[in-house]
Amino acid sequence: MRAEVVAVGTELLLGDVVDTNSAWIGRQLAEAGIDSHFHTQVGDNVERIQVALHVALGRSDAVVVCGGLGPTPDDVTREALAGVLGVELVHDDTVLERIRRRFEERGRRMAPSNERQALVPRGATVIEQRRGTAPGLICPIGDQVVYVVPGVPHEMTEMVERAVVPDLERRRGGRAAILSRVLRTWGEDESALAELLAPRFEALDASGNPTLAFLASGIEGVKVRITAKAATADEAASLLDAEEAEVRAILGDRVVGVDHETMEAVVGRLLGDAGLTVGLAESMTGGLIASRCSEVPGSSAWFRGAVVSYASEVKFGLLDVPEGPVVSEPSAAAMATGARSVLGADVGLSVTGVAGPETQDEMPVGTVFVGIALDGEVAIEHLRFGGDRTSIRRMAGSAALDLLRRRLLDRSAVAAAV
Amino acid sequence: MRAEVVAVGTELLLGDVVDTNSAWIGRQLAEAGIDSHFHTQVGDNVERIQVALHVALGRSDAVVVCGGLGPTPDDVTREALAGVLGVELVHDDTVLERIRRRFEERGRRMAPSNERQALVPRGATVIEQRRGTAPGLICPIGDQVVYVVPGVPHEMTEMVERAVVPDLERRRGGRAAILSRVLRTWGEDESALAELLAPRFEALDASGNPTLAFLASGIEGVKVRITAKAATADEAASLLDAEEAEVRAILGDRVVGVDHETMEAVVGRLLGDAGLTVGLAESMTGGLIASRCSEVPGSSAWFRGAVVSYASEVKFGLLDVPEGPVVSEPSAAAMATGARSVLGADVGLSVTGVAGPETQDEMPVGTVFVGIALDGEVAIEHLRFGGDRTSIRRMAGSAALDLLRRRLLDRSAVAAAV
Repeated sequence: MRAEVVAVGTELLLGDVVDTNSAWIGRQLAEAGIDSHFHTQVGDNVERIQVALHVALGRSDAVVVCGGLGPTPDDVTREALAGVLGVELVHDDTVLERIRRRFEERGRRMAPSNERQALVPRGATVIEQRRGTAPGLICPIGDQVVYVVPGVPHEMTEMVERAVVPDLERRRGGRAAILSRVLRTWGEDESALAELLAPRFEALDASGNPTLAFLASGIEGVKVRITAKAATADEAASLLDAEEAEVRAILGDRVVGVDHETMEAVVGRLLGDAGLTVGLAESMTGGLIASRCSEVPGSSAWFRGAVVSYASEVKFGLLDVPEGPVVSEPSAAAMATGARSVLGADVGLSVTGVAGPETQDEMPVGTVFVGIALDGEVAIEHLRFGGDRTSIRRMAGSAALDLLRRRLLDRSAVAAAV
Repeated sequence: MRAEVVAVGTELLLGDVVDTNSAWIGRQLAEAGIDSHFHTQVGDNVERIQVALHVALGRSDAVVVCGGLGPTPDDVTREALAGVLGVELVHDDTVLERIRRRFEERGRRMAPSNERQALVPRGATVIEQRRGTAPGLICPIGDQVVYVVPGVPHEMTEMVERAVVPDLERRRGGRAAILSRVLRTWGEDESALAELLAPRFEALDASGNPTLAFLASGIEGVKVRITAKAATADEAASLLDAEEAEVRAILGDRVVGVDHETMEAVVGRLLGDAGLTVGLAESMTGGLIASRCSEVPGSSAWFRGAVVSYASEVKFGLLDVPEGPVVSEPSAAAMATGARSVLGADVGLSVTGVAGPETQDEMPVGTVFVGIALDGEVAIEHLRFGGDRTSIRRMAGSAALDLLRRRLLDRSAVAAAV
């Protein structure tokens, strides 16, 4: 099964926008074990979109088209697709009704131009729109298939995960099953993981199945992807289970979660299991950790809130941090106990540091202190990160959550041993 | 003159790396007035690179190939190109000498594998390598031309500016410039903007220059892109200035910022201009607004911090919100004044609402209250959003920042009038 991606938008060709959608879709395809040999970007132009579609259908089984589904005259993906399919565009009343409702939910009236978004090539299956107004489309052409999804990233990602990848997997179904599983790790870079896992690479080289691959993923750490092929999905899953056990035996608690389980979701699960709540004191991360925690569905059970103490006076006043350098161990400790106390939480987690571009308190850019107040003790970690301001802030957030994760794992191991 | 970009690298297809090179090259081509209708990404595979080259040469005058020039066996762009040109690869002694010297400068000995980087298709012109070890190539094929540059961004950019764009301009003769500018808007969707700007579309249709296009961008609102062509960059810039003025006259304060200026950066600029600081009280947005504010370089001048009051008791205790339903006007008002007071800020901005999936305080999912405490007054807005939990949280954050932006604009207009 081969699928390729066609991203539509003149802004991509002009370099006004970097095409992150194709990379994201490429990753989903790879994780689903679907080969992808080409990505193409094309402008908002009917003929050129059709050229791109014909070229893609000439060499792949499936094409995922992304973008050009808006309500304005420059959004012409629907027209281009209908031409390639050789069918007319028809109004879909169900789609139109959903668009109308979306506007009503926001207390607005739908503009007439939005009716264009309810146009569907005859015979196409609609992917319900849940985040925006444009629906997605599934259009079979003989043995092949074209998917169309919106170009707005958060609309696109939701639709690809919910409808496109499952449909591709279903279509591939008859053939051998290719399953993959992603183990999310934190704390080692790609080359260190490769050295640790060298015995597994050697062992697997003989059979070539399953395979291991690494995927450096920024704040999500390094992902280790296990891919297994077998006659049935059950057999492939058994191969994955066995290899996951081997990898976990080597990597231990460096493995954070599996597949889509994020660091913050794992921390939330561990807190929930222990019957604990957490409160944050964020300085250099400025709310990044809070926004990640509050994004987890059901987080109100364990997330109390945060004090984002960006100004030093907020640390001194609200968190009762002693006056002095705020990028320091004592400050991190006071922030953690202060957060626990003012937010009424069982655990206080604090981050203070220097994101740059300037140094602070004579500490170099990239310096980070993390504090964890729990069970009457305060533990402090001193970390260092490279990269630019954005990168340092993001990595510090993940590192702080990881320290809390390890602390909770140790605590439950001790409890289990008692 | 039409040129297209082919980026080589399996990592681009797998989504391990986002292809920023093609966007950058696309921008250089646009600024030089060279049309670019397609970009393609292809893996490290001789046959597939050749397919991509044949497709590109079938529809464009020039192709800029980027990547696959390294010393390892998976770097096969040279081999693929020689096949398409129908010539053999020969060692270029001058190139080899420069590679050797590059290693000597770094106190290293050249590895034998680097000799591959001195292979040049017979008849090609070499673009001297100045930053890395791989040279670039200029390969005419009849009236057409293929350029090859390394995939390492800082090697690529230097070579494209020094050799590729000038060679393209020489082949085309003369020079035209295509410039674009993006006006970021908030508060209207694409179709409503299209209706407002209908007179401009009509006025521009006659000349076809400049052109207008829309880009729905989620939490960044809808972007209006103006693109102008002219004989020189100065003339194109004048066309952009004139059209920007026309668009602004119609859209007024719906225009948030220009090009890469984000909503939070604009709010920060307006706060800075007024000599004000802001403190946040975030409930349903859970730190999203704080993380956006703290991401702006220099935000410590105007951003005091935030109280993320995810648990109701944090609102009652820390922010002095009266007990009762927390998704309500009185709660938003108390949160805004509470944030201003406990964070020692001039302005308090609060957001409370229902992100879902469950309703809260008998309010439907998507309900949002925003409070702004400033100049002894508290203004409350009641908003509604559709979509899922993630979408509602993100849009509520942008909407809250936009309300503060408008409030600050009104305030400075009043001050200017007095």
